[in-house]
Amino acid sequence: MQKKVAVILSGCGVYDGAEIHESVLTLLRLDQRGAQVQCFAPDIAQLHVVDHYSGDEMDQTRNVLVESARIARGNIKNLHELHVGDFDALILPGGFGVAKNLSDFAISGALCTVQPDVLTATQAFAKAGKPIGLMCIAPAIAAKIFGEGVHCTIGSDHDTAAALQQMGALHMECTVDEIIVDEQHRLVSTPAYMLAGRISEAASGINKLVDRILEMVG
Amino acid sequence: MQKKVAVILSGCGVYDGAEIHESVLTLLRLDQRGAQVQCFAPDIAQLHVVDHYSGDEMDQTRNVLVESARIARGNIKNLHELHVGDFDALILPGGFGVAKNLSDFAISGALCTVQPDVLTATQAFAKAGKPIGLMCIAPAIAAKIFGEGVHCTIGSDHDTAAALQQMGALHMECTVDEIIVDEQHRLVSTPAYMLAGRISEAASGINKLVDRILEMVG
Repeated sequence: MQKKVAVILSGCGVYDGAEIHESVLTLLRLDQRGAQVQCFAPDIAQLHVVDHYSGDEMDQTRNVLVESARIARGNIKNLHELHVGDFDALILPGGFGVAKNLSDFAISGALCTVQPDVLTATQAFAKAGKPIGLMCIAPAIAAKIFGEGVHCTIGSDHDTAAALQQMGALHMECTVDEIIVDEQHRLVSTPAYMLAGRISEAASGINKLVDRILEMVG
Repeated sequence: MQKKVAVILSGCGVYDGAEIHESVLTLLRLDQRGAQVQCFAPDIAQLHVVDHYSGDEMDQTRNVLVESARIARGNIKNLHELHVGDFDALILPGGFGVAKNLSDFAISGALCTVQPDVLTATQAFAKAGKPIGLMCIAPAIAAKIFGEGVHCTIGSDHDTAAALQQMGALHMECTVDEIIVDEQHRLVSTPAYMLAGRISEAASGINKLVDRILEMVG
């Protein structure tokens, strides 16, 4: 039986959406390991649009689902259509989109809230005991999904780690080529571009995360 | 000595820019093989903007350099700054951006012209005898770069192949996991998403293209 994995994207571009390398590396590894993949994204406006060449904010509005569709080559569904019963596991790549579109962690830090569709979907997987993979900055919402005491990593950034701890997560330092596994909560996390200086470094941890998620599906 | 490879992007998204998977797979393989990479894109407006969720054209203007910067995580230069003497090889991933932004092949077919900065840069590599990799639809501009008699592949699409032949290229049928090497012109091409049904299929040919290009640098 092919393992079925849902991937939630948060736009298209590290500074205002999903980190493109992390997203593609996730899709590549899942496909190489024979998993069946479906991408999803919420049908909401991005917090803002960043010119990735200059770093400046642009006077433009973009939609998270529409931009995420670029990474998915159009093969993406509205997050409303994600039914936990149809999938064995869930993975969220990183990028500022997780902290700006899927939650307001980039603005509110430890006081953040998670976008309702994202919270509903992720909590449904957690409640069903189906494994969840969170990479890069995505573990910022781990305590909101699982509650206090969940183990995860965002690498080694002290301020971000402190915010996670304040929310009730137990932050574990982790190198870019490793993963943190919370067996009880069935959560796997890896630092990816929170630490990676090169795409092959990001791939090393992401490949381990995907492999472990698929193992946990059993 | 680290081999230095320039990558020219054409936007960010298969339907109006660079094919994201192909671009990331190229960057991944180059990095895994120890090459030093610099991305470039022309500072021009896209032909148009396509909503990758609905497939409809959007009432918006986007810039090829600014959007390509998303794939490059901001580490990209204006194509004007590409000096052939600084690099050992050149690779162009595919996506409709090659046929819509880097040339007008999508509109004019065999009568197409290549964007001047792109033509100057690619012909400089050809003249210097430095290897060039073209994937997916990018070989549509091979005859414009090298002149008549250049061997290349866009997979097996008969209409597209016919247009290439009309321009003077010699089209070779090729499976998704293989490459066509024109030793005389030092050109390597692979069908990628002209044929790929899955990202791992695209990766199989792209990895071979990158490996061969680096071998040709010697």
